[in-house]
Amino acid sequence: MAQLSDLPLREELRGQSAYGAPQLKVANQLNTNENPYAPSQAIIDEIAEKVRELGEELNRYPDRDATGLRTELARYISQQTGVDVDANNVWAANGSNEVLQQLLQAFGGPGRSALGFTPSYSMHPILSAGTQTEFIAVPRPESEGFAIDMDAALAAIEQHQPDIIFVTTPNNPTGNVTSLEDIRRILDAAPGIVIVDEAYAEFSDEPSALTLISEYPTSLVVSRTMSKAFDFAGGRLGYFVADPAFIEAVMLVRLPYHLSTLSQAAATAALHHSQDTLATVEKLREERDRVVARLRELGFTTINSHSNFVFFGRFADSHTTWQEFLDRDVLIRDVGVPGWLRVTIGLPQENDAFLEAAQALASKEKKNS
Amino acid sequence: MAQLSDLPLREELRGQSAYGAPQLKVANQLNTNENPYAPSQAIIDEIAEKVRELGEELNRYPDRDATGLRTELARYISQQTGVDVDANNVWAANGSNEVLQQLLQAFGGPGRSALGFTPSYSMHPILSAGTQTEFIAVPRPESEGFAIDMDAALAAIEQHQPDIIFVTTPNNPTGNVTSLEDIRRILDAAPGIVIVDEAYAEFSDEPSALTLISEYPTSLVVSRTMSKAFDFAGGRLGYFVADPAFIEAVMLVRLPYHLSTLSQAAATAALHHSQDTLATVEKLREERDRVVARLRELGFTTINSHSNFVFFGRFADSHTTWQEFLDRDVLIRDVGVPGWLRVTIGLPQENDAFLEAAQALASKEKKNS
Repeated sequence: MAQLSDLPLREELRGQSAYGAPQLKVANQLNTNENPYAPSQAIIDEIAEKVRELGEELNRYPDRDATGLRTELARYISQQTGVDVDANNVWAANGSNEVLQQLLQAFGGPGRSALGFTPSYSMHPILSAGTQTEFIAVPRPESEGFAIDMDAALAAIEQHQPDIIFVTTPNNPTGNVTSLEDIRRILDAAPGIVIVDEAYAEFSDEPSALTLISEYPTSLVVSRTMSKAFDFAGGRLGYFVADPAFIEAVMLVRLPYHLSTLSQAAATAALHHSQDTLATVEKLREERDRVVARLRELGFTTINSHSNFVFFGRFADSHTTWQEFLDRDVLIRDVGVPGWLRVTIGLPQENDAFLEAAQALASKEKKNS
Repeated sequence: MAQLSDLPLREELRGQSAYGAPQLKVANQLNTNENPYAPSQAIIDEIAEKVRELGEELNRYPDRDATGLRTELARYISQQTGVDVDANNVWAANGSNEVLQQLLQAFGGPGRSALGFTPSYSMHPILSAGTQTEFIAVPRPESEGFAIDMDAALAAIEQHQPDIIFVTTPNNPTGNVTSLEDIRRILDAAPGIVIVDEAYAEFSDEPSALTLISEYPTSLVVSRTMSKAFDFAGGRLGYFVADPAFIEAVMLVRLPYHLSTLSQAAATAALHHSQDTLATVEKLREERDRVVARLRELGFTTINSHSNFVFFGRFADSHTTWQEFLDRDVLIRDVGVPGWLRVTIGLPQENDAFLEAAQALASKEKKNS
């Protein structure tokens, strides 16, 4: 048997460890921003029926361009955002990670750079590294509630001339949004493309950056996912919406037949019942507001969340506090921002369990201080 | 609306076109080396049942390490090759293209090179380009029936010191095999890793390169797929087998949660019924031998095939001949090797249709000559 260090691995990978939150079995799993509601029976029935129907074709390669699924996504997006798009505006892959990787392959890569506002989705720098794209981090000041500091942003864009700019809104892990006005200023300054990562858009009342696509056809891409608002994280379906030229671009780098027949069919079925899913989004928003209110009552600081998670603090040692929640059967996320932790909004009883643990920890902290 | 040329695409992608065989609806589709037999009813039933069972968990992310599926793959591989492996030796992804891309990210990339013996699987150079890995092509001489010229191979390895070497056996598109003895000579000469691409292994009587893994733990990787012998191209499941250190290596570059819950479950179900699938492999081998014998009777040259396709020629203008087959409702593959075409072995009636077209074209060529 060999050791990893015996292999002729690329130098920059040596000593690294694999990305990923711990997959622990805990009573209250509030760490990966999934929708806690199972898909409706109508969705499960339609997927199972489709699988039966398509089973006989599984020996054949899938539709390489996933046209049926992209049509259904376009219908959903048009309805959800009010911006009229069709299949030619939409591209889909196995999770938004694959979508973003394809965009980085086409528009980033060696000798090119990507700029992001951190803390944000931690896969942006990892995907950049995986495609040899230099990643430039512009900090979101904690003193501003982790909003993008627009002066610093515009100065960094001017200085670094990045080929790609990531704007996550609502932002993960902080939950706050960037206004369309600020996105427009970033687009006006960008020398390359701007990827607005709207993974959590359905939880927010802010208008989508999709409304700007006709104005910025050569620079704006909006990425989204069915892993969050949709109860479909297990189905792995991410997508982006942009001018059709961007779809032509990623087709130059996508792996042929990247989306299986089953993935295409299951996502299409889930989209047929998007009302079922969006009803759960409404419940989660209400629960989120309840959790935020109670955390504030307990004396915690929270960032205004437009998403299905809450970033809260401040803790002297956030990793110890993370462990203390885990000891109380509540798994939340330590994203590595000192003083802060992120909790995903779950079912009401899960949120209750979380809030009870938070209360116990708050009294303990008071006693110690 | 923008044009592709208006976007800030990477320079090397400009002017390129997307990879992929034409997806035409033709009575006899013999162009992509799929297994023409639909999955058995037992497989379809088990997949549909599993989907119903797992439907309620689709809101949760999949098992990131696909442990259950990898265990099932290990069981199948041990049985099919006689080499005892377990889940720690196996890695799976969405088709062998993704598996190979991950290996290129970990062991190739900018400043590194991959060497292959062409004509071979056309995705090897494309995946190399997509990961910025320089691709070195060493020609398989037509005069040797497209076998690897071992003297030229060893000289090229000595000269270029490639980080990765691809050996496809049985080779696509030519169908011939490379002996274990020659693979061993390549492994002995290789300064980096050797990927033996055994996508078509089940159609061959040659022992698998897996038998060499314990001897070459730091350099040998054997990639395989469920798209070919398995009637599961639509399920998109590729895998590799190697020393466990290689699995640790690709986990540094894989996208987290790359394999959906449905992909993992469906592939596991198909593996439970591998006997059903392998029964079709036996039929396809018989049909292959019948097609080869008839092509030779008709005066065509064929390469000895150990796969589910036949490379045959020679044609003054292979693209014109390809079109003439298509005009007779038979879609085969022009892989861009002058003088030669590739036909996938289909159902008996499809092979009959192909052979009738071949006969008509053979008489026509005789008339013209």
